[in-house]
Amino acid sequence: MEGTKTMLIDQFKTLLGDRHVITNLDDKAPYLREWRDKYEGSAAAILKPGSVEDVVGVIKLANEHGIALVPQGGNTGLVGGQIAFDADRQFVVNLSRLNRIRDVDTDGYTMTVEAGTILANAQQAADDVDCLFPLSLGSEGSCQIGGNLSTNAGGTGVLAYGNTRDLVLGLEVVLPNGDVVNGLNKLRKNNTGYDLKNLFVGAEGTLGIITAATLKLFPKPTGQQAAFVAFSTLDETGAFFKTAKSKAGSQLTAFEIIPRIGIEFLVKHVDGARDPIETPYPWYALLEISSGQSLENASELLMEILEHGLENGAVQDGSVASSEAQRQSFWHMRHELSGCQKPEGGSIKHDVSVPVASLPEYLRETIAVSQDFIPGCRPVPFGHWGDGNIHLNFSQPINMDREAFLSHWEEMNRLMHAITLSYGGSISAEHGIGIMKRDELADTKDPASLTLMRTLKNTLDPNGIMNPGKVL
Amino acid sequence: MEGTKTMLIDQFKTLLGDRHVITNLDDKAPYLREWRDKYEGSAAAILKPGSVEDVVGVIKLANEHGIALVPQGGNTGLVGGQIAFDADRQFVVNLSRLNRIRDVDTDGYTMTVEAGTILANAQQAADDVDCLFPLSLGSEGSCQIGGNLSTNAGGTGVLAYGNTRDLVLGLEVVLPNGDVVNGLNKLRKNNTGYDLKNLFVGAEGTLGIITAATLKLFPKPTGQQAAFVAFSTLDETGAFFKTAKSKAGSQLTAFEIIPRIGIEFLVKHVDGARDPIETPYPWYALLEISSGQSLENASELLMEILEHGLENGAVQDGSVASSEAQRQSFWHMRHELSGCQKPEGGSIKHDVSVPVASLPEYLRETIAVSQDFIPGCRPVPFGHWGDGNIHLNFSQPINMDREAFLSHWEEMNRLMHAITLSYGGSISAEHGIGIMKRDELADTKDPASLTLMRTLKNTLDPNGIMNPGKVL
Repeated sequence: MEGTKTMLIDQFKTLLGDRHVITNLDDKAPYLREWRDKYEGSAAAILKPGSVEDVVGVIKLANEHGIALVPQGGNTGLVGGQIAFDADRQFVVNLSRLNRIRDVDTDGYTMTVEAGTILANAQQAADDVDCLFPLSLGSEGSCQIGGNLSTNAGGTGVLAYGNTRDLVLGLEVVLPNGDVVNGLNKLRKNNTGYDLKNLFVGAEGTLGIITAATLKLFPKPTGQQAAFVAFSTLDETGAFFKTAKSKAGSQLTAFEIIPRIGIEFLVKHVDGARDPIETPYPWYALLEISSGQSLENASELLMEILEHGLENGAVQDGSVASSEAQRQSFWHMRHELSGCQKPEGGSIKHDVSVPVASLPEYLRETIAVSQDFIPGCRPVPFGHWGDGNIHLNFSQPINMDREAFLSHWEEMNRLMHAITLSYGGSISAEHGIGIMKRDELADTKDPASLTLMRTLKNTLDPNGIMNPGKVL
Repeated sequence: MEGTKTMLIDQFKTLLGDRHVITNLDDKAPYLREWRDKYEGSAAAILKPGSVEDVVGVIKLANEHGIALVPQGGNTGLVGGQIAFDADRQFVVNLSRLNRIRDVDTDGYTMTVEAGTILANAQQAADDVDCLFPLSLGSEGSCQIGGNLSTNAGGTGVLAYGNTRDLVLGLEVVLPNGDVVNGLNKLRKNNTGYDLKNLFVGAEGTLGIITAATLKLFPKPTGQQAAFVAFSTLDETGAFFKTAKSKAGSQLTAFEIIPRIGIEFLVKHVDGARDPIETPYPWYALLEISSGQSLENASELLMEILEHGLENGAVQDGSVASSEAQRQSFWHMRHELSGCQKPEGGSIKHDVSVPVASLPEYLRETIAVSQDFIPGCRPVPFGHWGDGNIHLNFSQPINMDREAFLSHWEEMNRLMHAITLSYGGSISAEHGIGIMKRDELADTKDPASLTLMRTLKNTLDPNGIMNPGKVL
């Protein structure tokens, strides 16, 4: 075995160049450690191809020698999909060197970038020509487009612009048999045969390696205005979301929910965070309006929506950002919601979605069940109301032992996921399946869908070289 | 053979009920004639299942007896995909009876409808609850959702709302092996495994039978305003589109181009059509702005865009609709553009798209080449500028024989498609492949994509029972 491995590594070195095949334990470590230390992997080597031809060569060698490849971008995934787990037979294929922005087309609002392009660099390239690439995530400074595509990343731009899947016009993909699908195109309409691109978006590297993508750009908003609003009940939140959506359409670029306890955590633990509304209320939303015309236009529309909400009783109170700096500070509070839970002890988390209309009932039920299960645990559900996607987090009871609380993680997950499924919801709204939810997917997915997924996997990758043990 | 066929028809009658199995030649005729009389087909029978279970039963019998099924909706397809061509071994499966609107969710902006639902009925069901289902086509009074999905229909709403594919949240599909994929869901975010729905959207009934879909709804615009604008050159059109798009974003709900000759044909042949702008110009666009706030808001934004275009010289003149009636009459002119070419003799047509930024150069080249090929032929390119999708039509020279002109159809197609492909364009932007463009697809598609399509077809439908001879 060791001899074969050495021989194979030599072949990879010949193909990619010595310095693009990492075998030293210390040098491999950063590619094998999941950033929250949830998974620690192992791999025969880290391979860093520098071209599409390199990727083809790697895949051909993998087929010849029956070893497995684990594609990896910025290593920011949350379900272990990007981690290898076999020091002899698995190789990480890190796409970081494929990081060219091949084309930016401002008239056609498209951009063609390679898989290893860091998301923030793609955003910047669009911004430089007065366009918007709307995908935006917490990890945007290090995650890569290839990983965003392979996980169909969500984030804060979904309400107006869709998931990563919705931002793709065409893909270049190396298949497990070494064929290169040249599917890059800038076309808004193209009905020439099966839609192949969506097979690879969200497949978490199990069906091939995406090497480049043509993505949609949008006009950059000229003005944006944001407000915090307060509700007595979640039914009010639902009613007000409807008002905002119907008046603003896709100019409503955010509608994020925050519970009272989230505001309290922020005020307590985050520098500069202030209670946005004097009187406390059980629920808050951060909403944002964007305009291609002007800041005044965004402000007027926001005020009209707020006034309508106050008049019909859906909103109890509101606070509009008085400056761009305050708008930024509103967003800062939103972005710190995850972090501000840490000083409060252990937190059990869920990445769920349900139909938007079910959110009030769903949240009431999950909160009630959590109290029965662990009396005194503190629900901090927050996030993308408009997408039906809630970060259903529970902070530990104040005086409970952290480890004792966290020992209930899996049981809590089972409870919450069962409720989620009973609402026709998803147990992985935006993070994917990876290795973390693989067994749960097998237990809960529609049987015919699961069978079809397995059939597709076996057909495209009969030798099982692409990211084995992930998703399926 | 005849005995087997009779026996099989009896089995279908037992399954579906006698009156839902049509075998009489006259009664079959409307299902076998393509509406422009381009294809006249034949089939052993027309089967009209009334439930998902019926469809499963039909598919099981097809597999047992090795016969083929041709799924059909409203029979409005333009490439022959919905027509059967074998009186012994092919059966049309007409989905018209599966026409229930199962659910309309106004808070979550979704609608679940069966495949046989007529598009206009789906639009109406959304409108009844103050929502918009934005898919809109010439044939909306008779085409069905299942056909729209299977062809990934385009139409006039694509610029702001996307193609049919972009409007789908989940599908219910009967696979060629009889399995039912229960993929209906109302989720805006769901990353639990491969995206199966997009495999069936646009597959033209070759991979299974779609029986129902959960679709996205949108807030119904409160106000809409439209204008005709005039350009001296296509470069001006491109510059003005960019202005309109950057200021209005997805409030720009139409940007349709019309050449001078189109206006002349309309004025000459269509009752009530009037030259929208006093001075004639080579090119015109019909643009529309929609607002969730008010008609005033739509008008203000339209005026701002127009003024900007006039100031920077991208627009020569413009005419804003002075009333809702005039806005409707502007749209009436747009909708009559295809019809008004008929009195002018033969017309050779193309359904092409190119990158939006290439449109000016592409149109100049195709027009020049058409003049070299058939001197005096009259180009009438019109349509969805914002989608890069042009109906590249050529009316015959004034004194040429109609049949002599039309005899050049295929050669003209080859010429225009070669230019289209050289721009990275599509030879079927919105109509699909069907039987009409099957050979051309095989000749021009990226080889790896074509191979993968064939692999998928053989894997999902190893007995070749689903719409054989179409697409691949």
